Amino acid sequence: MNRVAILFLLFFPLLGAAQEDAFAEDAFFIRKIYDEALTRSRCYDWLNFLTRRIGGRLAGSPQSAAAVEYTRQVLDSLQLDSVWLQSCMVPYWVRGDKEQVRIVNSLKMGTVDLNGLALGNSVGTGTMGITASVVEVKGLDQVDSLGEALRNKIVFFNGSMDPTQLNTFNAYGKAAGQRVWGASRASRYGALGVLVRSLTTRLDDIPHTGSTVYEEGVTPIPAIAISTRDAELLSRLLQEEPVRVFMRNTSQNLGEVPSFNVIGEIKGSEFPEEIILVGGHLDSWDVGTGAHDDGAGCVQAMDILHLARLMGYRPKRTIRCVLFMNEENGLRGARAYWKWSDEKGEYHMAAIESDRGGFTPRGFTADGHEEVFNEKFRKVIEWLPLLEPYGLNFRKGGSGADISGLKGQKGLLFGFEPDSQRYFDYHHTPIDGVDVVNKRELELGAAAIMSLVYLLDKYGI
Amino acid sequence: MNRVAILFLLFFPLLGAAQEDAFAEDAFFIRKIYDEALTRSRCYDWLNFLTRRIGGRLAGSPQSAAAVEYTRQVLDSLQLDSVWLQSCMVPYWVRGDKEQVRIVNSLKMGTVDLNGLALGNSVGTGTMGITASVVEVKGLDQVDSLGEALRNKIVFFNGSMDPTQLNTFNAYGKAAGQRVWGASRASRYGALGVLVRSLTTRLDDIPHTGSTVYEEGVTPIPAIAISTRDAELLSRLLQEEPVRVFMRNTSQNLGEVPSFNVIGEIKGSEFPEEIILVGGHLDSWDVGTGAHDDGAGCVQAMDILHLARLMGYRPKRTIRCVLFMNEENGLRGARAYWKWSDEKGEYHMAAIESDRGGFTPRGFTADGHEEVFNEKFRKVIEWLPLLEPYGLNFRKGGSGADISGLKGQKGLLFGFEPDSQRYFDYHHTPIDGVDVVNKRELELGAAAIMSLVYLLDKYGI
Repeated sequence: MNRVAILFLLFFPLLGAAQEDAFAEDAFFIRKIYDEALTRSRCYDWLNFLTRRIGGRLAGSPQSAAAVEYTRQVLDSLQLDSVWLQSCMVPYWVRGDKEQVRIVNSLKMGTVDLNGLALGNSVGTGTMGITASVVEVKGLDQVDSLGEALRNKIVFFNGSMDPTQLNTFNAYGKAAGQRVWGASRASRYGALGVLVRSLTTRLDDIPHTGSTVYEEGVTPIPAIAISTRDAELLSRLLQEEPVRVFMRNTSQNLGEVPSFNVIGEIKGSEFPEEIILVGGHLDSWDVGTGAHDDGAGCVQAMDILHLARLMGYRPKRTIRCVLFMNEENGLRGARAYWKWSDEKGEYHMAAIESDRGGFTPRGFTADGHEEVFNEKFRKVIEWLPLLEPYGLNFRKGGSGADISGLKGQKGLLFGFEPDSQRYFDYHHTPIDGVDVVNKRELELGAAAIMSLVYLLDKYGI
Repeated sequence: MNRVAILFLLFFPLLGAAQEDAFAEDAFFIRKIYDEALTRSRCYDWLNFLTRRIGGRLAGSPQSAAAVEYTRQVLDSLQLDSVWLQSCMVPYWVRGDKEQVRIVNSLKMGTVDLNGLALGNSVGTGTMGITASVVEVKGLDQVDSLGEALRNKIVFFNGSMDPTQLNTFNAYGKAAGQRVWGASRASRYGALGVLVRSLTTRLDDIPHTGSTVYEEGVTPIPAIAISTRDAELLSRLLQEEPVRVFMRNTSQNLGEVPSFNVIGEIKGSEFPEEIILVGGHLDSWDVGTGAHDDGAGCVQAMDILHLARLMGYRPKRTIRCVLFMNEENGLRGARAYWKWSDEKGEYHMAAIESDRGGFTPRGFTADGHEEVFNEKFRKVIEWLPLLEPYGLNFRKGGSGADISGLKGQKGLLFGFEPDSQRYFDYHHTPIDGVDVVNKRELELGAAAIMSLVYLLDKYGI
């Protein structure tokens, strides 16, 4: 309670008596949230089940259906006002056989197998695979300048994440274009396939998957991520001799299948039409078990409702937990939700997404419609003295993919922002498991989000 | 550079022209420190060698001698003004056979083996071990109130770390007394041995070692830590029936052996007599490989000199890296250093110890002699606008065990403070290895310390 005491001393002289009382009440309630989250949270157990018992939850997969049912049951057990599934159609992509990426007949090195992982949505090479000469590029622009020289080649995108960015998401944002658009761009000039350097600042043997998108009108060509260490090797070899690579994947898009968002809510007692959404995405990639991305966000969102119940907290506004389906390779769940919510004329006063991993909280990014954002953000900033003792801050910035489409409702959109240093060690890889999630860090995230929900609910914006 | 630009906008209106220039120079230099640390640091490679090639480095062990020689060679390779070893005598304690802790002939559970690890400095049970009834206590005070009832018993200290403390070191500080003093206290009343609940907020099967201290005049009795899960089991069982435990360890103190602190320095060009010390402790426990505790601190301290060289930085004041020996079970290296430094009439203008793990930096604790502390601390606080963009803060608080004895020289003492959430998952256990250290987090720590060293060196205090 030491920090709370310090807060009193710091801020009491500035406040009137009524404000003092409110500040004291809020400071104590937030401290209580943290006490509860650090002792009675169930989010780590839920994450354990979601990852170890169910596993990777690619949209459309049997595991994704299991995750829908499991989380629905958990929400059902919390005695909420309502729990329901919201249907959506999702693309069902399957990886197929273990990918092969092989340097063939190098003069210096002979034949070398590289660690490869097909990008999500990638078409397959056909069962015989593709063998072709490799051309290295650093990014999309270089593809355009090389143009026809890429015909019948395998294009190797070797742009790397900038390690000097303190926030690794900034480095990711700059480097992700080659993964998303590389195949389409190279296909314009007749390339046969693409290899993409994995998106991580680490130098290791672990390939990172993630979505690739085929632009309308281009011939889809296969795309495989290779590990950063293998990217370095391939690049060095290309400086010394022409290199031919054999690549093979049997990935396929199996069309659309039905799936669901999972939703639970506690109805507001005074302003039920003002919705505070907390959410994450329930799907993950098929490799690994999607612990940080985004099992962590889902169980934190569920824990908000759980903590509210534990603490006997009756919200004035409606608190709704939404676990979105298909964020990774389609955003279909989110789109279905936005459409449904807009058609009902709903108003999301605030939405908070947790989709940057289950690490120690640092704060929230905030975003919103330009007509209202600055005024609303100013209001939120006033809560900082209550949140800073917990290491939380606000900054302007994108919120989360699944809630971004709610901007038109003119509420505030928040992205929960934990420490970013380790996220891209695990992102979209086989090692994103619950063993690399720290229980306390995960719980602190739930407490941070619940604290913001409490202030949003109490004061409105 | 975005943050730097924001800093300009925020602070330029408040500053005179000369101050503006200085602020700009400092902001850019600190940004450059981070760029270098995140791209050309060698601290992770050094840590890899220290942990994987050398291993656990208990004072007096052959591995500790290897670590002295390895780090001396590394410092030698940095072309410093001087590198030397400072001798000291250290206690050499050896663990002996694998410890046994066994619940015998329980009515409910039969015979159950618990996960035990002798506390450092513990005497052995003798080769036949000890079997006795167990009495559970929550802390030292309870020992005094039970008094003679503990004669010929095994006392089980089951105080736990408070999970609601945001900073886990606070929880550790409150709970560590039973580990350090439990054996002595119980021995006063004729107990035969002690079992101690491991110091971690996690519930798992991993016992944590750490030092126990025998008070003068008491009969030393053996002390073994058990895992938190086993502590819970033992406690539950004690509520249902009397429990007898067999405990056995063959640990011994082998007397004193010679060892060394490792020191390297760059002489100051203007004020060579004003010393800025950066340090960590080179010894670790024998289990695990002492990666966070305190390999991380050592390689960060070495990296300060490396970064200075890389950047062609010529300090005005003397920058000295000290790798202390025997912090864990004696502090003999530190005591030898203090004595030597005081006798030479040295002045440590500042000393910074990194001994809280290689996690994402949050700032520094600061401490110092009461006659000068407040005034000097005010000076340091003025640098916050330069450090806050990197997530760094200052707070008053203890610095580090190895530098605490320099307080009499009336400089400022700092403890580097990283995020504390994961530290006690690994502390003093077999799983404190380089695989649980994140390279970027480690490098950011080196950059944070180097930034403070730069400001201390440029402006003095």
